[in-house]
Amino acid sequence: KHSKLPDHQTSIFSVMGKMALDHNAVNLSQGYPNFETDDHLKDLVTKAMNDGYNQYAPLAGVPKLREQIVQKIASLHGKEYDPSREITVTNGATQALFLAITAFVHPGDEVIVLKPAYDSYEPAIELNGGKPVLVQLKGKEYSVDWEEVKQAISSKTRMIIINTPHNPSGNVFSKEDMTRLEEIFRDTNIIVLSDEVYEHIVFGDAKHHSASAFPGLAERAVVCASFGKTFHNTGWKMGYCVAPSELMKEIWKVMEVNVFCVHHPTQRAFAEYLKEPRHYLDLGKFYQEKRDRFLELIKDTPFKAIPSNGTYFQLLDYSAITDERDVDFARRLILEYKLASIPVSVFNKDQLDHKQLRFCFAKKEETLVRASEILKKFE
Amino acid sequence: KHSKLPDHQTSIFSVMGKMALDHNAVNLSQGYPNFETDDHLKDLVTKAMNDGYNQYAPLAGVPKLREQIVQKIASLHGKEYDPSREITVTNGATQALFLAITAFVHPGDEVIVLKPAYDSYEPAIELNGGKPVLVQLKGKEYSVDWEEVKQAISSKTRMIIINTPHNPSGNVFSKEDMTRLEEIFRDTNIIVLSDEVYEHIVFGDAKHHSASAFPGLAERAVVCASFGKTFHNTGWKMGYCVAPSELMKEIWKVMEVNVFCVHHPTQRAFAEYLKEPRHYLDLGKFYQEKRDRFLELIKDTPFKAIPSNGTYFQLLDYSAITDERDVDFARRLILEYKLASIPVSVFNKDQLDHKQLRFCFAKKEETLVRASEILKKFE
Ligand SMILES: CSCCC(=O)C(=O)O
Ligand SMILES: CSCCC(=O)C(=O)O
Repeated sequence: KHSKLPDHQTSIFSVMGKMALDHNAVNLSQGYPNFETDDHLKDLVTKAMNDGYNQYAPLAGVPKLREQIVQKIASLHGKEYDPSREITVTNGATQALFLAITAFVHPGDEVIVLKPAYDSYEPAIELNGGKPVLVQLKGKEYSVDWEEVKQAISSKTRMIIINTPHNPSGNVFSKEDMTRLEEIFRDTNIIVLSDEVYEHIVFGDAKHHSASAFPGLAERAVVCASFGKTFHNTGWKMGYCVAPSELMKEIWKVMEVNVFCVHHPTQRAFAEYLKEPRHYLDLGKFYQEKRDRFLELIKDTPFKAIPSNGTYFQLLDYSAITDERDVDFARRLILEYKLASIPVSVFNKDQLDHKQLRFCFAKKEETLVRASEILKKFE
Repeated sequence: KHSKLPDHQTSIFSVMGKMALDHNAVNLSQGYPNFETDDHLKDLVTKAMNDGYNQYAPLAGVPKLREQIVQKIASLHGKEYDPSREITVTNGATQALFLAITAFVHPGDEVIVLKPAYDSYEPAIELNGGKPVLVQLKGKEYSVDWEEVKQAISSKTRMIIINTPHNPSGNVFSKEDMTRLEEIFRDTNIIVLSDEVYEHIVFGDAKHHSASAFPGLAERAVVCASFGKTFHNTGWKMGYCVAPSELMKEIWKVMEVNVFCVHHPTQRAFAEYLKEPRHYLDLGKFYQEKRDRFLELIKDTPFKAIPSNGTYFQLLDYSAITDERDVDFARRLILEYKLASIPVSVFNKDQLDHKQLRFCFAKKEETLVRASEILKKFE
């Protein structure tokens, strides 16, 4: 019998991560920090285990954690969710996205996806018999043409997936973007699935605008977030989604059948840790310093930075160096230079190749220095 | 737009668990231990966090853990799986079951389910557009009529789900059962999804026969197992599945899209802990003592134990007490007597009601005593 995802390739993150390991390369590919998560947070997990929180958590998550999350959202975006009915704690934001897609996408439904896009969206849609409708973002800086998004809507459109701050471009949707989105979708039944895992990583004057802050979106939005990206522990696999209760009811059905619940002691730890807003409010400044340092280190190389204002990724244009396709150049950069990155074309519509590589700068100073020394070998 | 699971009710485990909590009842409902997991295992999780295993694990699981698992299976069942291609570590066995169903069940496919059955199987099949074909096990002791199973096969049958040791009946498939199953399915393409989460909890002369031990099954079997059930930490949500690599390839696609990977430090801890086989080999004896103690405590009550030889559940027939439906009696037992159990009819075909309740005896001595004191109030 045929595969349900016949054309599916191994994730680029697994491929580049393995190559980096095999060739002992400096690894700026998969998006995770190589410095440590807070010792205090580890102690909180240990404490939760010792306090006996080692059996099933409630399906939707530990109540105290759900309360902390809704308080955080209320204080940042002015939207009040009901902790008892409008939230689910998940195995990373990836699961939150999967739950929403699985709960709402029926066979034959269309889902609008803005490209470049994180690589789990399309196969999740396809697994549910849905059809991704791809809208390529414009130019080498990936701006949104909202008119084109509007044109992509049909009677079959069930959902649009947005991602702000945007991986891999680093673009943060402006207030105007969000308002335009709200205008377009306000009078539809189209669900807005908003991937906001880099919500706290914004730079300069940019501000993160959550879909939950726009009433015309929030009434049909599922907003997904990540503790791993925010608290430097991507391997703890914890995130959440919030949505109006009529939507959350459907998400719970899938959650129950998919995993029932997630790691209990880790939930207890985050419930405590979230009580201190500085643990996430300082994150933009922290990563902006890393980003600025990385750009400073490579300023005399032929790699040209694509302007951005969020996430912990930086796109570099290498067209001054070679005409090679980005997948080939990324490969050569590992094999010959021992530096791992992610080629951007794999996220684009029709593998559109702007000669850009994505570098994750969520790394220690010494790692950024080593990476820059390699990039400096090019002239 | 209509729900993808329109008739889905909140899981009986959530319902009874919440009622037990609200009414401060002695809780023998949801299947989890109320004693502690090994402190040494907690220390291993802490050590893994302190050793810096806090970022993404590989999709299929930590290699050292996969090696320990295949060694365990080889020593117990004589079947050698390839740790690099035939295993996935999952968010509990529930996710392992979900992955297999999602990877292989296409819209219109039939899946044979033996009833009573764990409550995640059927909605998982339905979410994928499949059709559960229900075969009710026979009599108050739930024996399998293999002729009837054979009759249930059609040209649309894609999968059969088996569960041994069986929840809720406590029956362990005999070698003859497994051989009969093998005969029936050997010359088909039907996938055998084998839920073996209680694999180490078997009593007396009974022996657990894994589907992986029968070549005619193993070549198309996905075998699911649980660390939570075996190591007393259901809230750590870790399990795994093994399958031939052609099947595992498809499961990995779904794993990637669903969660990417699971809790990294906990995987490291189990990789160490599994090195000591006594940690799971003694489990049958441990739980048989609890089961025997529970039966001894209630032997003078009108509750009649249904014979069984595995799992940490005991079915009790209450027909000598009342004609009430099991769901009503279970409810009254919480509200009036402060004792929580699970009514069996919710797992049966057409809610067949044999006047039985399921009690989880994975409890401390004092909890079993308190439960028995309540049951003794009936004459
Ligand atoms: C789950 S692997 C992908 C990590 C990530 O978010 C990225 O590199 O974009
Ligand atoms: C995930 S809740 C169900 C626990 C269990 O295995 C049972 O009670 O049967």
